[in-house]
Amino acid sequence: MDKLLRGIRLCSDSLSASGGGRFARAIMTTDTVPKEYAVRIQLSTGSAVIGGCTKGSGMICPNMATMLCFITTDAHIAQAKFNRMLKKAVDRTFNNLTVDGDMSTNDMVLALANGMSGAQVCGASDDAVFYNALFEVCNRLCAKIAEDGEGATKRIEVKVTGGATYQDCKKAAKAIANSNLVKTAIFGNDPNWGRILCAIGYSGAGFSEKKIAVKLCGTPVFSRMRPCDFQAKALSTKLHEKVINIDVDLGSGTANTAIAHTCDLTYDYIKINAEYHT
Amino acid sequence: MDKLLRGIRLCSDSLSASGGGRFARAIMTTDTVPKEYAVRIQLSTGSAVIGGCTKGSGMICPNMATMLCFITTDAHIAQAKFNRMLKKAVDRTFNNLTVDGDMSTNDMVLALANGMSGAQVCGASDDAVFYNALFEVCNRLCAKIAEDGEGATKRIEVKVTGGATYQDCKKAAKAIANSNLVKTAIFGNDPNWGRILCAIGYSGAGFSEKKIAVKLCGTPVFSRMRPCDFQAKALSTKLHEKVINIDVDLGSGTANTAIAHTCDLTYDYIKINAEYHT
Repeated sequence: MDKLLRGIRLCSDSLSASGGGRFARAIMTTDTVPKEYAVRIQLSTGSAVIGGCTKGSGMICPNMATMLCFITTDAHIAQAKFNRMLKKAVDRTFNNLTVDGDMSTNDMVLALANGMSGAQVCGASDDAVFYNALFEVCNRLCAKIAEDGEGATKRIEVKVTGGATYQDCKKAAKAIANSNLVKTAIFGNDPNWGRILCAIGYSGAGFSEKKIAVKLCGTPVFSRMRPCDFQAKALSTKLHEKVINIDVDLGSGTANTAIAHTCDLTYDYIKINAEYHT
Repeated sequence: MDKLLRGIRLCSDSLSASGGGRFARAIMTTDTVPKEYAVRIQLSTGSAVIGGCTKGSGMICPNMATMLCFITTDAHIAQAKFNRMLKKAVDRTFNNLTVDGDMSTNDMVLALANGMSGAQVCGASDDAVFYNALFEVCNRLCAKIAEDGEGATKRIEVKVTGGATYQDCKKAAKAIANSNLVKTAIFGNDPNWGRILCAIGYSGAGFSEKKIAVKLCGTPVFSRMRPCDFQAKALSTKLHEKVINIDVDLGSGTANTAIAHTCDLTYDYIKINAEYHT
């Protein structure tokens, strides 16, 4: 209770440009770091800011705490348009985020726009600028949650391109990000492209068997229906890095792209979730 | 190659009543025990046997070996009927089995009927006897795979009843069995009913909020919208057993039942899958 009240007090005397950081800290529970991100955008009638903060470490924290995310902007934007853009951005970011596949039943993303900058989101060009910035804020906040995932030693960013539809890219990206076998392989610094391909195989995503290609940490590991000629030892060393990129081209030649964020699956995830008792 | 040839030799000189055990052993890869099961059934025209054996430890074993299952019967049964019954039994057993959520893309269940017993599967009563025995063989073989799951210290059997449809029961059972949080809680001997309810919540299964009830190792832990008054310490001691039953009544008052088999998620699963290198 004390902690909660402290959080509220922090917020109430923080209606200032510097208050966001204290708010981000006040909502932390099992999080080990506060998670914030903001971008400034140039619209046709002026500049505005989109900022956000979030909390969450397991999709369910031990005490059933939830993932929370708060996004604010001083842009002037029509409510229906803001709703539509938020829904799309969340579907392409938070809905592709996984720490352990166990979705909380009560996650929340709140977005507020107060128009204080005077800059309006008006016309196709402004719309694109605003949406891209909104996506970027959501996307970076997801990366911060994945990085702070329970027991994580590294963050994994799965980028799937070239699906016939966005849904194909999303299905493949989520299957890879949810795969315990992919996540343990990354923890073990093992460039195991077979587990990545297998997850794509059972994901239900459409892809070209002949053209599908996979890169791990930027190194091509599979293309033209066979493993590439990569140096396993050197790639295993690369896998010690803190951010691991898995890039998949489904081979259908389109511009569709989905990104899924996750982290490795480690002894500490087991420790945190097996040794915590209700 | 040697190992493969040995397997084939074992089979070819084992066309005998005692050959099945050697076959079950010959197909093992990372399995730690052979897995067999058989039942004798009484049909209207005589008795027959349905037997089976299977292999598999992770849904994907480290070398991409697959789960295999071979079922045989000496009953005389029409091919279309056998196909239909097998499909239903597999859908309700092997398709509800999970070690780590990572389905192999090339699992297989083969079933053979040679009619040698002379007993025919004929009429509704025989059909029911035969199907129930076929289900039982598949179900017990699934339990054996779950028990031998990578890193498992205990087997978990999730039984969900009372869904408006079988699919509701199946969705809930599979979500629980696939939940890393449920599986780590069982490993840690933690009677965490919240994680079970949460998995049901995100499973998409329909249920009655007012009537849903959960038992863990036979002990009621949740009913009438609140946790039951159970002894957490005594239940935690029960959770040290080798077989853990999770029983859920979705509260829609029907006879539908789904069973899902799985095992706990342990440090050894991480060890096996992070320390194995391609």
